[in-house]
Amino acid sequence: MAEIKNTAIETFLDALASNQATPGGGSAAAIVGAMGAALVSMVCNLTIGKKKYADVEAEMKEVLAKAEDLRHRLTGMIQDDVKAFDTVMGAYGMPKETDADKAKRDQAIQVALKEATEVPVRCCRLAREVIDLALRASEKGNLNVISDAGVGVLAAYAALRSAALNVFINTKMIADKSFVDAKLKELDGLLAGAEAATEKAYGIVKGKVS
Amino acid sequence: MAEIKNTAIETFLDALASNQATPGGGSAAAIVGAMGAALVSMVCNLTIGKKKYADVEAEMKEVLAKAEDLRHRLTGMIQDDVKAFDTVMGAYGMPKETDADKAKRDQAIQVALKEATEVPVRCCRLAREVIDLALRASEKGNLNVISDAGVGVLAAYAALRSAALNVFINTKMIADKSFVDAKLKELDGLLAGAEAATEKAYGIVKGKVS
Repeated sequence: MAEIKNTAIETFLDALASNQATPGGGSAAAIVGAMGAALVSMVCNLTIGKKKYADVEAEMKEVLAKAEDLRHRLTGMIQDDVKAFDTVMGAYGMPKETDADKAKRDQAIQVALKEATEVPVRCCRLAREVIDLALRASEKGNLNVISDAGVGVLAAYAALRSAALNVFINTKMIADKSFVDAKLKELDGLLAGAEAATEKAYGIVKGKVS
Repeated sequence: MAEIKNTAIETFLDALASNQATPGGGSAAAIVGAMGAALVSMVCNLTIGKKKYADVEAEMKEVLAKAEDLRHRLTGMIQDDVKAFDTVMGAYGMPKETDADKAKRDQAIQVALKEATEVPVRCCRLAREVIDLALRASEKGNLNVISDAGVGVLAAYAALRSAALNVFINTKMIADKSFVDAKLKELDGLLAGAEAATEKAYGIVKGKVS
């Protein structure tokens, strides 16, 4: 399969649904997060340059620049997740005949699991930032496309919680407890307030479109 | 732009982020819903045929068939949303010189807005079904890929709420109040219990991966 970002959407969906372990939920989370960022950008792009929104133009330009940076980084993570998973599988497939083999294999598995944890943690960090940008877009963006800010925040929140599940599943098998504690603590911080920010943005949008 | 489902993911994200009104949140909701269905299918596909899961095989086959049907219908809605939006824009662009023009234009706008409401209502219906299937997958699917059932339910729930925003924004401008009331009532029914089912599935998955 070609790099996922260069794959047609329906082809990707077929691969996602198949009995292959990759692409899976990690790549899906990155795509959903990138869609959230893209929708924030869309709202900004349709607000900037409009006379009626001249007083928020500078802020919308700032939000747009940040959203585009996040979108590109989340798009890169689609493939990072596959790579990290394949590395874990490769480590599990190493020889385990001798004690030396086993020690080498165990070490490779632990290194691979840490990277497979870091990738979704990074995805959580970026998705959390998208939520905050979507909230600003929902507050100040062009009313004609404000529902897109609402869709953007829902996508970013789903991406954050989805990537969190991928952190949990990988940390479970990691022996280095101080690494695990640090990652889970960071995750708690990223999840804290995310629901409230999402519901605030959703409520603002719903109020404007109803 | 080619039909969206045949477009590469990154090309779609570029178009979503752009200053063009389509593709927008409606197409994004359909894609996110289709990803949710695909993840349910993946969990089923990796459960079916495994000795350890022989006792749930019949149920997983049933869930798979339903998820694949929903996935294909949600994939079709990606383009339906663009078409419905373009029809609304086309109606707004009709001549409004004479009273006869105006009456014809108003009627065309109302017809187009009803179709632009029906499309996201259909998306909500399907996303709601995906949530219920994801819950079953989270309860009985292969433990090794159970996080994918969690990502699937989060995607389906985001799709449902996203499509709901597109229903709200369109019904706002529809003159036929009995049509609007019927759609909003159906939407209430689809949203009722969706959060509880989503959180139940998420909680089951989190309990299994933590």
